[in-house]
Amino acid sequence: MSKAKAEPDIAELRADIAETTKEIIRLMGRRNDLARQVGRLKARESLPAEDDAVEDSRLREVTEECDRAGVDRGAGLKILAVLLAESKKAQGISPPASGPTPMSVFAKALALQKGGAKLIRLDVGEPDFRPPKAVLEACIEALVGFKTHYTEPSGIPALLLALRNYLRRKSGLEVSNDELAVTPSGRFAVYAALSATISEGDSALVLEPSWPAYKEVLHHIGAKPIMIRTKLEEGWSLSTEALAEAIRPNTKAIVLSYPNNPTGKVISPETFRSVVELADDRGLTVISDEIYNEYSSKPCPSILRTTPKKFILTSSFSKTWAMTGFRIGYAVSSRDVITKVAKMTSMEVTSVPEFIQFGAIKALDADTEVKSNVEEMKRRIDAVSEELDKIDSLEYFRPDGAMYFFPRLRKQGWSGDRFVESLLERGVSVTPGLAFGDYPDFFRISLGQPKETILEGVRRMGDLLA
Amino acid sequence: MSKAKAEPDIAELRADIAETTKEIIRLMGRRNDLARQVGRLKARESLPAEDDAVEDSRLREVTEECDRAGVDRGAGLKILAVLLAESKKAQGISPPASGPTPMSVFAKALALQKGGAKLIRLDVGEPDFRPPKAVLEACIEALVGFKTHYTEPSGIPALLLALRNYLRRKSGLEVSNDELAVTPSGRFAVYAALSATISEGDSALVLEPSWPAYKEVLHHIGAKPIMIRTKLEEGWSLSTEALAEAIRPNTKAIVLSYPNNPTGKVISPETFRSVVELADDRGLTVISDEIYNEYSSKPCPSILRTTPKKFILTSSFSKTWAMTGFRIGYAVSSRDVITKVAKMTSMEVTSVPEFIQFGAIKALDADTEVKSNVEEMKRRIDAVSEELDKIDSLEYFRPDGAMYFFPRLRKQGWSGDRFVESLLERGVSVTPGLAFGDYPDFFRISLGQPKETILEGVRRMGDLLA
Repeated sequence: MSKAKAEPDIAELRADIAETTKEIIRLMGRRNDLARQVGRLKARESLPAEDDAVEDSRLREVTEECDRAGVDRGAGLKILAVLLAESKKAQGISPPASGPTPMSVFAKALALQKGGAKLIRLDVGEPDFRPPKAVLEACIEALVGFKTHYTEPSGIPALLLALRNYLRRKSGLEVSNDELAVTPSGRFAVYAALSATISEGDSALVLEPSWPAYKEVLHHIGAKPIMIRTKLEEGWSLSTEALAEAIRPNTKAIVLSYPNNPTGKVISPETFRSVVELADDRGLTVISDEIYNEYSSKPCPSILRTTPKKFILTSSFSKTWAMTGFRIGYAVSSRDVITKVAKMTSMEVTSVPEFIQFGAIKALDADTEVKSNVEEMKRRIDAVSEELDKIDSLEYFRPDGAMYFFPRLRKQGWSGDRFVESLLERGVSVTPGLAFGDYPDFFRISLGQPKETILEGVRRMGDLLA
Repeated sequence: MSKAKAEPDIAELRADIAETTKEIIRLMGRRNDLARQVGRLKARESLPAEDDAVEDSRLREVTEECDRAGVDRGAGLKILAVLLAESKKAQGISPPASGPTPMSVFAKALALQKGGAKLIRLDVGEPDFRPPKAVLEACIEALVGFKTHYTEPSGIPALLLALRNYLRRKSGLEVSNDELAVTPSGRFAVYAALSATISEGDSALVLEPSWPAYKEVLHHIGAKPIMIRTKLEEGWSLSTEALAEAIRPNTKAIVLSYPNNPTGKVISPETFRSVVELADDRGLTVISDEIYNEYSSKPCPSILRTTPKKFILTSSFSKTWAMTGFRIGYAVSSRDVITKVAKMTSMEVTSVPEFIQFGAIKALDADTEVKSNVEEMKRRIDAVSEELDKIDSLEYFRPDGAMYFFPRLRKQGWSGDRFVESLLERGVSVTPGLAFGDYPDFFRISLGQPKETILEGVRRMGDLLA
């Protein structure tokens, strides 16, 4: 009653908040109207539906306005993400359709096989090697010994210890228990790493071509993958300048994956170091997926040796030890990030199956098997190169590592998609280039089959293109 | 050039869009200012920091304004969620702290044990039974037979077939392959079910007390769990009226979990049916977590028998077959929802380990073991009831099912937290009531130990409270 007139009471403030909220919604409506008009004009004038430069201006304006108005940038970027999605809908632009994925080809091939077809499976990124005997034995011993319970979300202490020893031996890096988390697959490690560092309205730099999961997870988060295109004619090399130019105000991370799937490229230590410097300069997290690290014919740079200020290593037992069906991987990062990763594991699956963790311990000592797997992969690369050289209408980069070839079709009328279809009719399955980015004339050959089988597959490619 | 002056060109429209966007950000800033003022007044007048009624008004205003302005309600609610989070930050209200979880007690107890302490573990919700022998054998056979590869994201066909037969036998419901997905744990099924039906800015009704994961996942999504409190003095019964009153304009689902963890309550088929009718009336999805379904001393209503228009069943192999450490569960729903669930499995972990799926097939035929597990659990409930009856200062509901007691302390000066601490000093670990909601005077006893061990634990409770 005696309050000074100048100061509003709670009811008045709340009425003002309500009015402000409604005004924001009304402005959204107005924004949609304007977007619809833009859409109509674009259609009439045959302009491209999406325009990155325009989106970039909005981004800059919003971050600047946030700073002026005292609004958290993250909240502003998130609002902008909702506004952009809404105005795209208003313009009738559909969200990016996901291309074919290695997994969708995998499903098709599996169905054909189950229908009785004899197929040479060069699509799936799975080594044909057997898991080390010691892994199987340890797994069985753990099962029989009723190691069939919940465990710590980030992994049993014995596995963490074994992993720390392994990482020290491989990279010289001393990792503590709270900088390391076991995850239910390398894929989950990637998913958790991206989720821990990137929010809705943010963006991340991703090399192209690449494994589709990075893009897929970023879309799921509501973040924008900024694709950095690399080219066969440039030996799939990475330009730090291109990376630097592509950074936007909402960019939080760079995703690296060497040896690369699908190209087999390994970048030089110098390039790797310059990417790390760029990330440090610009405050970005480097997420390095090193799942194929052991499969390399030249020393492959590792994030564990050139550690940026902010980084996450993701890896897995799947490829090195042929343990795809065990679904176990790991992540190395700062305590903060690892706490988040462990929390996601805990929230989504509790932990990795206990007996599988006991099996994984034994993998880390299975050097003989790793050496034999790596050497066999090199022999396959040699043999396939020789065979591909005989096919004039295929152009390819000889892989430095990983377990794939990613050739380009140089024959009139043959797109990657058509080639994949026709090849399937000849009993060979490969993955179309579009699964890895904007590479319609490419396809991926996986080397996860015995050498003779792969060579027979490659010969049929030659026959088809002859 | 000859365009009518009345029609703006793209550049003009874009400038207008930019201005509108900036105005939205400015209004956010203004809203934060107003919220800060409200926060100061609240503090001065000692008013509660959060006010559901105020939030409800905003919710209604926003949905109404969306309809008027032609803005998608989902987008509007999401914007509102960001605005509310921002103004809470401006007022200095921290996001809801998560209480102790069964898993955090589990971690503590595990650390004590690893330090050499002898503990009676009545905290962890894990049966002490062994997995059926046939499951172990099938798992080992699959390992030895190199069933160690990627599989279909929603499960191998043989397991889907076995699950369909099992569900038909248990509930009479005919489920097709695309209405069913194997998941990497029941927890993941819950996570995927909630993610598939609820978006940021939405809300869902959740019973209290309950397993903390529902709340945890909803917070992760950015949705609001609306807790429906049930009470010991009302026999933990569920009021459909209370549910109906709690529904807000952004409510998308009701989460049921019977037999309940931690209370052991099983609701009547009549109540179950009235909840389903309510959900159908109001267009809500019923998510029914039936992981303890087999552990019930009276017929437990199932969503598979009283199917609402929109529903998701989540379940797991963990409790019925003592397979916690296998991490395998499943979800049943419409084709649309199951497609989303399978997509999440595919994106996050590819698939459940192949040999574990082969093991799970055998569980579905292990009726003898299930019967024996269920009967033993009943014997434990009888014996623990008898022992608890001797402790005057504990009040409890005799569980209809599941594998827990959730007693209340009725002794001056004893909170659940203090009790849990003191009991731990006497070598018995249980879970504090706060882990399951606003139940500070309660604690949970898990029956996942041999009967005599549990009874010894309960006797120590009596000694402590004597």
